[in-house]
Amino acid sequence: MESDGPNIHESDFYIRFGEASHMNIEEIRGRSRVILAIDEEEPRKYWNVLDAVGSSVKAVKLGWMAILSLGSDGVKSLINGHDDKYFIMDAKMADVNFINEKIARRMAGLGFDGIIMHGFIGPSNAPPSVMDVFVLISMTQGPTLYDASLERAMDYTKAIDRRGIVVPGNKPDIIRKAREQFPSDVIISPGIGAQGGSIGCAVKHGADFGIVGRSIYESSDPVESLKRLEREAAESQC
Amino acid sequence: MESDGPNIHESDFYIRFGEASHMNIEEIRGRSRVILAIDEEEPRKYWNVLDAVGSSVKAVKLGWMAILSLGSDGVKSLINGHDDKYFIMDAKMADVNFINEKIARRMAGLGFDGIIMHGFIGPSNAPPSVMDVFVLISMTQGPTLYDASLERAMDYTKAIDRRGIVVPGNKPDIIRKAREQFPSDVIISPGIGAQGGSIGCAVKHGADFGIVGRSIYESSDPVESLKRLEREAAESQC
Repeated sequence: MESDGPNIHESDFYIRFGEASHMNIEEIRGRSRVILAIDEEEPRKYWNVLDAVGSSVKAVKLGWMAILSLGSDGVKSLINGHDDKYFIMDAKMADVNFINEKIARRMAGLGFDGIIMHGFIGPSNAPPSVMDVFVLISMTQGPTLYDASLERAMDYTKAIDRRGIVVPGNKPDIIRKAREQFPSDVIISPGIGAQGGSIGCAVKHGADFGIVGRSIYESSDPVESLKRLEREAAESQC
Repeated sequence: MESDGPNIHESDFYIRFGEASHMNIEEIRGRSRVILAIDEEEPRKYWNVLDAVGSSVKAVKLGWMAILSLGSDGVKSLINGHDDKYFIMDAKMADVNFINEKIARRMAGLGFDGIIMHGFIGPSNAPPSVMDVFVLISMTQGPTLYDASLERAMDYTKAIDRRGIVVPGNKPDIIRKAREQFPSDVIISPGIGAQGGSIGCAVKHGADFGIVGRSIYESSDPVESLKRLEREAAESQC
């Protein structure tokens, strides 16, 4: 690349000029297997956590607590301030289609790259593809109605325009079934750590990413904890 | 009541000094059968709509669009500014218990009197009773997984500490089944108007309240539209 001046490198260019710097989830897939989740009350915590992990983290999952704590503008600033990362809104969308559409459009406007919806609401209630959609087909804790309806939830999901699916990291058998049914989907798995799942085991059964929160950012050395999880994921053992 | 001074009446006392002025949903039940829903983008619209309907409206349902549009502080002000009404947060809560608890506590802190959760997540994921809980057991649009699992959703709901349930106003047969199973619950029904339900028919089949939005506040005479709906509800005809 021809130099634009003594202090400008290609990576700076992308960081400075926005959109191109957001990696899509396919680019991250294989390079990293950890999605950092943050569900905190204190607005400053979101910034502190992302500062602490730096560029080691490629993808971040936020939820309604982020909206309630930081506000819409605060979330937008957080995303803009970390535009080397892929941001997923864990909206657990479970409303009718015209409300889901309003929420999804708003979240896209805040800078989110992906959003999580519940598969149980079916394809007729799915939002339009204003960003990547991840369809949840089973929960980490329950019992829930998914337990008796997994096949139907997977059928619904196949009819939804999506980037990937959400499957419990603490239920390896369900990850395996989902991988068989969705060979090319990006599979993301919460329930790692506090809820009993192991990232190595989730990956072994077909997950692309484990979603982990406090066991990274409440660690005394978050980057080292993240690296340990990436190693466990790479080893892919139960 | 002994007078506290020339300008203070009992109703003023309650309005001025807070908590007691919020009617609980049992007090409203029978006096009014309409819950006003507002899901708008424009913050000012929330205030304008409530100004337009005044004291005719006894209960209001807000959702995530209110949080996204007004912010947490804006929602808190809106509720504080209308403390003669009962406010329900239509969170469609569908997360695991520790996240649902965080959301419910935050919503109680904003002044909401009730919150809606999805029954399909089961009793183990229900939030603690920090305010009235309304459990949704079927959706107005679908198909959804509830359609094949209504009995189980009702069983889950019976195990949840709740004030009432949410049943589609456009599915009278499901309202009737729900009323049989939940004889003393407060039954609230969305899907009136735009989604095809009639408030008279919903009430006839067992609903206590119909939830209505734009057909009230986008009317040229919102108070008259509300009164018409109250009359239809009182007539209780299909």
